[in-house]
Amino acid sequence: MRAVVIHAAKDLRIDNVPPEELRSGAVRIKLERGGICGSDLHYYQDGRIGTITLKMPMVLGHEVAGLVDELGPNVAGLNVGDRVAINPSRPCGICRFCSQGQQIHCLSMRFYGSAMPYPHIHGAFQESVVADATQCFVVPKTTSAAEAAVCEPLAVCLHAVRRAGSVFGKRVLVTGAGPIGALTVLAARQAGAAEIVATDVTDTPFELVTKLGANRCVNAARDAEKLAAYGKDKGSFDVLFECSGNERALTGAFDVLRPGAVIVQVGLGGSFTLPINVVVAKEFELRGTFRFHEEFGLAAAMIGQRRVDVTPIISATMPFTDARAAFDLAGDRSRAMKVQLAFS
Amino acid sequence: MRAVVIHAAKDLRIDNVPPEELRSGAVRIKLERGGICGSDLHYYQDGRIGTITLKMPMVLGHEVAGLVDELGPNVAGLNVGDRVAINPSRPCGICRFCSQGQQIHCLSMRFYGSAMPYPHIHGAFQESVVADATQCFVVPKTTSAAEAAVCEPLAVCLHAVRRAGSVFGKRVLVTGAGPIGALTVLAARQAGAAEIVATDVTDTPFELVTKLGANRCVNAARDAEKLAAYGKDKGSFDVLFECSGNERALTGAFDVLRPGAVIVQVGLGGSFTLPINVVVAKEFELRGTFRFHEEFGLAAAMIGQRRVDVTPIISATMPFTDARAAFDLAGDRSRAMKVQLAFS
Amino acid sequence: MRAVVIHAAKDLRIDNVPPEELRSGAVRIKLERGGICGSDLHYYQDGRIGTITLKMPMVLGHEVAGLVDELGPNVAGLNVGDRVAINPSRPCGICRFCSQGQQIHCLSMRFYGSAMPYPHIHGAFQESVVADATQCFVVPKTTSAAEAAVCEPLAVCLHAVRRAGSVFGKRVLVTGAGPIGALTVLAARQAGAAEIVATDVTDTPFELVTKLGANRCVNAARDAEKLAAYGKDKGSFDVLFECSGNERALTGAFDVLRPGAVIVQVGLGGSFTLPINVVVAKEFELRGTFRFHEEFGLAAAMIGQRRVDVTPIISATMPFTDARAAFDLAGDRSRAMKVQLAFS
Amino acid sequence: MRAVVIHAAKDLRIDNVPPEELRSGAVRIKLERGGICGSDLHYYQDGRIGTITLKMPMVLGHEVAGLVDELGPNVAGLNVGDRVAINPSRPCGICRFCSQGQQIHCLSMRFYGSAMPYPHIHGAFQESVVADATQCFVVPKTTSAAEAAVCEPLAVCLHAVRRAGSVFGKRVLVTGAGPIGALTVLAARQAGAAEIVATDVTDTPFELVTKLGANRCVNAARDAEKLAAYGKDKGSFDVLFECSGNERALTGAFDVLRPGAVIVQVGLGGSFTLPINVVVAKEFELRGTFRFHEEFGLAAAMIGQRRVDVTPIISATMPFTDARAAFDLAGDRSRAMKVQLAFS
Repeated sequence: MRAVVIHAAKDLRIDNVPPEELRSGAVRIKLERGGICGSDLHYYQDGRIGTITLKMPMVLGHEVAGLVDELGPNVAGLNVGDRVAINPSRPCGICRFCSQGQQIHCLSMRFYGSAMPYPHIHGAFQESVVADATQCFVVPKTTSAAEAAVCEPLAVCLHAVRRAGSVFGKRVLVTGAGPIGALTVLAARQAGAAEIVATDVTDTPFELVTKLGANRCVNAARDAEKLAAYGKDKGSFDVLFECSGNERALTGAFDVLRPGAVIVQVGLGGSFTLPINVVVAKEFELRGTFRFHEEFGLAAAMIGQRRVDVTPIISATMPFTDARAAFDLAGDRSRAMKVQLAFS
Repeated sequence: MRAVVIHAAKDLRIDNVPPEELRSGAVRIKLERGGICGSDLHYYQDGRIGTITLKMPMVLGHEVAGLVDELGPNVAGLNVGDRVAINPSRPCGICRFCSQGQQIHCLSMRFYGSAMPYPHIHGAFQESVVADATQCFVVPKTTSAAEAAVCEPLAVCLHAVRRAGSVFGKRVLVTGAGPIGALTVLAARQAGAAEIVATDVTDTPFELVTKLGANRCVNAARDAEKLAAYGKDKGSFDVLFECSGNERALTGAFDVLRPGAVIVQVGLGGSFTLPINVVVAKEFELRGTFRFHEEFGLAAAMIGQRRVDVTPIISATMPFTDARAAFDLAGDRSRAMKVQLAFS
Repeated sequence: MRAVVIHAAKDLRIDNVPPEELRSGAVRIKLERGGICGSDLHYYQDGRIGTITLKMPMVLGHEVAGLVDELGPNVAGLNVGDRVAINPSRPCGICRFCSQGQQIHCLSMRFYGSAMPYPHIHGAFQESVVADATQCFVVPKTTSAAEAAVCEPLAVCLHAVRRAGSVFGKRVLVTGAGPIGALTVLAARQAGAAEIVATDVTDTPFELVTKLGANRCVNAARDAEKLAAYGKDKGSFDVLFECSGNERALTGAFDVLRPGAVIVQVGLGGSFTLPINVVVAKEFELRGTFRFHEEFGLAAAMIGQRRVDVTPIISATMPFTDARAAFDLAGDRSRAMKVQLAFS
Repeated sequence: MRAVVIHAAKDLRIDNVPPEELRSGAVRIKLERGGICGSDLHYYQDGRIGTITLKMPMVLGHEVAGLVDELGPNVAGLNVGDRVAINPSRPCGICRFCSQGQQIHCLSMRFYGSAMPYPHIHGAFQESVVADATQCFVVPKTTSAAEAAVCEPLAVCLHAVRRAGSVFGKRVLVTGAGPIGALTVLAARQAGAAEIVATDVTDTPFELVTKLGANRCVNAARDAEKLAAYGKDKGSFDVLFECSGNERALTGAFDVLRPGAVIVQVGLGGSFTLPINVVVAKEFELRGTFRFHEEFGLAAAMIGQRRVDVTPIISATMPFTDARAAFDLAGDRSRAMKVQLAFS
């Protein structure tokens, strides 16, 4: 069985790997589609994400969907042939955080394609992958595998929006209009934001994010003064979703956020230098948001019931055997939004 | 009438100033005590606080108490001879933020001794000061002027604790044990924290903060490993009050804060460089806290009803005519906690 | 100038009334449309609402829109000819509750057409009405007066939805599908509810509320067992909006609400007898919701920007001179949803 | 082995029962003290609590403490001879609610001495009782068994106070000054309430609740007008803890609660008839509170570390062999607050 394996920075290979054993409560899934995520790209480009370094070859991938191929013992509610979106998150269920409903912070989390623990947790870019039945969310036949593979990044954004509290009737700023920024616009729109302004340093994604729900897009590199107008009377926006992982996007927004504004930091970055006096004097609330838990099922329902259309964010689909070319494309923001790999 | 006036960094003088007019709704107060605050010290030491620079001579002081000396027109509820703690905050009452109950962020705030607007708002280190009746909180005769002058810093800390949500039954870390850190310990204890650990880089304040409610004190410079023990299983503390204004105090606590922890940034500092990935992955909530509004009355009630004893934090009292010596003493953390000026 | 005046139960007249003086900061508005609300109906049918009894003839009406006809002194931001939705709420701005951002609970509230204070506050069913400029929300020319007159009941429902906290991704039950129930369905849909089930004791409104966003409608009188299915495993719904003002609608939902569910009581009723042990053991949160404040502007923006279409709820429009017939129609749920009066 | 067994209303016996098997992870505890709770009394007096009816003989008791006597397999962290407060709550850990951190609402809850499931869950009034190690909270040798047996009712009250959100600096009313009302006063005082007024229909408990933290006590039967004074300007209290289970205590407080007040219903009662219009118009939040989860450990820490002194609420201690007399005494509010049974 073939899989997409990262060996080191820039060393991405299609390797033969042994099929995983079909444990109790699990199913074998013939993979159909897998989206390339920013964290996959970090492993590919740098061999690490921040301080998390690749220490052994690891299968990548965690935005995946496929067809149930074989049922293990003690599986209920799934049938061979079902199309499923696969939740890449597998918390232990019994640790201190799991028992407090904070599965995201599970002390023994197994999340596809993560080099955080050692040995690393292999990802799901495999021709066939084993997952617990509880990780599998059946979508209707009318939902394509490509759409189903967007459940994961959508779940990230749904969790981000929930972290803001209610955005209903609020004025929202989204900085960074890559796949996560774009889906955050869509999620904030679904959650009833009164106004959504999206920024990026390139105009490329503006047509897409307008379609997904932004009222206005501003090129923060070229048209900073358009944004500055929101700074009147101590600032306009109630909520900022910082999706670029760029320090300047965050600090550059401080003037246009109203006192007491909620900032949800979605994008990962390295060290951010902040004027802490502004955080203090304007009483901002800066909240981290990480992955998701119950939002995966919500994403599957929203996509499966066609309450949202995520297809516009898929900018290219390539055979998994061309993974290197696909990763190179995914890394070029001027040409690509979300790139998916086709497995069958 | 004499007042304590800052002219430039290190240039603090006792000047004669004309008495303020007694406007409608206001009273004239014969000042008794005034506490020297960190912001007063910043003006004295640097001529500025962060980016706020002194542009004209300004009377300092905003932690003050005295005796009502004369009633202006249309004053109710106050009598000559009443001892009052004076709230240095005077929001406009009609702007966008005032009408949303966010008076702290008033667009036309007049706060004693602040160089933020220009012309600056003069402070209250004057032999006699005029204040709106609504700024005056009567304390019982059994409350000394020295205690009443602690209402202001206590109100800062009560607001900080409220910004954390409920701390009842929570594990709390307080970094920085100066006057604000010490009173935050007291406030968190009053609010029912289950456990309070205080840190500083000197042992000097540890006896005091233990008396005010800390269960344990750790010298973060010398005994970092004692703090590190709280880092087991992703961290112990539910809430951090960062009162030192020191970047390392904040980032040094990240390991011992549990996922989802609330961080209240109380101390003012300049630029803080943060590992933003940790804020994201542990889903911290970093909240600024600034001054206070309704907490001033709460502080006056707590002190007046003897529910708390704030006298231990007053380390010295000196005549206001010795202001320079008093400011030098207040700036030396190895010798002083809160230094007050006596006006009569 | 003519107005719709209630004299006593069933005694509704078209009276000549003197025009109101044009005070500073106010405008005169030529009324175009006025919706008949449940409280108007109560005065008409019973001469009272609960314990609030009519003690003098009173002009009815508070769901109104019209054209600005004359500007009083000191008015900015409005022009003659502007179409405005009129916020019927006029809080004092200075009382204890106004200064805490709780204008809804103003100690000196002046709300159109309310017999709560004495003398009563006259309503806006007048050919020409005077309102403060701050009460007027300009809508685009593309928005009809009929739509603009729905801002008020929509604002009621937006406030109700906000009282629930976030409903994004939640399962929502709405009991009672009159105008307020219907607009609550619309508001909860806008706020991102995952699933909305609406109930009523008649099928009449089901087509409408489905169009406004309900996933399913259940006739609670005829098909109680369909609702009962939601009671599995201690209950399904996260949030209940009780819009019928009927005790049985509330208590009948207890079985299908999950533990910790939020109940927002929107409908006014008399005495409700509740099994308090169920409230305790399932730890429900029953929250009253009353009128609105900043949600009026939000409603005007949603309608003006065509983010929602409220026209389906308007079931009939009649000349104000036929007010009695219009009120009789509005009181017959089998024939009417929202009935509006045309004034010009 | 002897146990206190309820057979039917008024039919309470000391029966011989077989010792429970010592399962894995569990310990055998030689019981020392057991407090008689209101629910025990309901079974004794009526053979039921509300709609929950006794269908088989059942051992009573869930406020218990004792000495660890024997360790089962796979027990860590406990030693023979440890004095432990026993948490009577044993959630399943895996159901929908447990995995959301809502163990209180576990679908398979096993709570000592509850007739809710059938067969009933036996209570802990046994000479020797088996409990999971996770149910056992070791207290210091300096803590008496009598004090340790108060952990359970204190945990109820800590959970009730937490359900209110933060009470720090708030004005609090507690209606009903039985054991739960008294411990709620103590808990609200610990949580930093600014002012606590307690009411009851008898003066008997007033000395005690004053000692536990009430600022003022009002006999609501005799001195209703003293309470009415709090009704000025729409009401004074921010939070009500209704601990009497009496409808009139709840509705009688509506006038003195400020708009937006939080009401925590602690006391169990039957049907309560409420003026729902008041709940709506004053936008109250009525929240049920049921048992506790993590608050048990918090209670054990508070008592064990002597942060609170619960001994004043223990009004009598009698041998368990005199259970009937003890239950009769406990049921007489004029003579008893908390009655405990001594087992060894």
